Amino acid sequence: MKITKIGDILIYFDEIRVKTLEREVLIDITNEIKKIIRKYDVKEGLCRIYIPHTTAGITINENADPSVIKDISKYLSKLIPKGGGLGYSYKHGEGNSDAHIKCSLTGHSVDILIHEKRLMLGTWQGIMFAEYDGPRNRRVLVQIQGE
Amino acid sequence: MKITKIGDILIYFDEIRVKTLEREVLIDITNEIKKIIRKYDVKEGLCRIYIPHTTAGITINENADPSVIKDISKYLSKLIPKGGGLGYSYKHGEGNSDAHIKCSLTGHSVDILIHEKRLMLGTWQGIMFAEYDGPRNRRVLVQIQGE
Amino acid sequence: MKITKIGDILIYFDEIRVKTLEREVLIDITNEIKKIIRKYDVKEGLCRIYIPHTTAGITINENADPSVIKDISKYLSKLIPKGGGLGYSYKHGEGNSDAHIKCSLTGHSVDILIHEKRLMLGTWQGIMFAEYDGPRNRRVLVQIQGE
Repeated sequence: MKITKIGDILIYFDEIRVKTLEREVLIDITNEIKKIIRKYDVKEGLCRIYIPHTTAGITINENADPSVIKDISKYLSKLIPKGGGLGYSYKHGEGNSDAHIKCSLTGHSVDILIHEKRLMLGTWQGIMFAEYDGPRNRRVLVQIQGE
Repeated sequence: MKITKIGDILIYFDEIRVKTLEREVLIDITNEIKKIIRKYDVKEGLCRIYIPHTTAGITINENADPSVIKDISKYLSKLIPKGGGLGYSYKHGEGNSDAHIKCSLTGHSVDILIHEKRLMLGTWQGIMFAEYDGPRNRRVLVQIQGE
Repeated sequence: MKITKIGDILIYFDEIRVKTLEREVLIDITNEIKKIIRKYDVKEGLCRIYIPHTTAGITINENADPSVIKDISKYLSKLIPKGGGLGYSYKHGEGNSDAHIKCSLTGHSVDILIHEKRLMLGTWQGIMFAEYDGPRNRRVLVQIQGE
C-alpha cells in the first residue's frame, strides 16, 4: 500500500504515429509508450492511451511469443469475417463493417497505472495497437496525468 | 506535446437519461456529452462515461453512416443469440443472458481525453449508448476531471 | 450535478490476491474492492482496477443471480474454444490462445466512479475477476485517485 499526495498534478499530452502495412495486424507499441513515460519522468499517476479511429483500436496482451497476437488477429477475423457471416450481410457500404465491430469489442483506449516511476504492466503484457482496416497511417494519443 | 499544470483540479459529476425504444440498438449520445463539456468549460482533463447497468453498455464507433452501428448491433445478435447457441443453453432464467454477455464484451465505460477545451474524439468517432435488453429507461453517469 | 474542488489530490495504490480454482471462472470481488474504498475514505474520485496478466481480465456484470456469470464464462468458451475453431488452429504453443483472445475482448481494467464516498456501481453490478486459464494465483492492482 502506498499513498501519494500530489500538490500540483500535471497533465502531459503527447502523440505517436503508427504506420500499418497489413489489413489486420496487432503491433507492439510498448517501447514507444515507455519512452514517453521516461521523457516526462512521472512518479505516480496514470498513462491513458486513446485511439481516435473507428477501424483501429488498442489492447493489452502477451508480447513474449509473437504468435499470440497473430492468433488474436486471425481468430477475430474468423469470428467476424470481412464479408459478413452467420446469415448476416453488412449494410455499411465501405466493406469494413468487420473492422468497426472488432473495434467495439477490443476497445479504443487502455489505461495503465504508473507507480514508483514504472508503468505497471504485468510481466508478459505489452500494449498492442490493433489495426483492423489497414494499411493506413494511424494516430495514438497519450495522456499522462500525475506527479 | 503539451504540459498543463493544474493548481486546483475539479471533478464534475453529472448524469443524462436515455430512453431506448428497441430491444437492441446503439444510440449516438455524442451531442449530449459535448453539451456537458461546454457547460463546465474544462480546458484540460478527462471525460469519463459510465453505464450503471448490466444489460446496457457504451462504445465508441462511427457516427457518419448510421448503418455502421446497425451492423454492430445486428452482428452481435448473430454471434450471441437471445435464445443461446453453439450448443449452449443459458442458465439465467430472465431470457437476457445474451445482453449480459454483450455488455462484458463491449464494456461499461469509455474515457475520452479533453485537450485545449475539446473532446478528443476522432473525425469519425461518436459515443454510442448500447442497449441490449430494451426498451428501458437508462442512466448515463458522466464524470469530468480537469481544470 | 455536483462540483468538487480538490486542493490536494491523493493517489492510493493497493493490491489484492485472487486464487482461482477452475480453468474458466468469473469471481465476484466487489466486497474486496469496497473494503479498500472504505479504508482510504475517499469522497470524490475514481477507483481503477487493473489486471497485470494476459490470460485473466476483469469485467462488470450482474452479481444477483450467479448463473449470469456462469453463462458469460461458458458461452465465451463456446465462441472461442480452447482447441481452436472456425477452421483456425492456434499457432501459440501453450494451449491457451483462447484465454489470450478472451482477455482482449473483455479487457484488463475497469474504472468505477466514486461520488459522495460511494462506489457508483449500478444496483445489479458487481466487479468480476475473469479467469480464463486457471487455476492460478492472480494479482489485482487497485489505484484510487481523489480526495
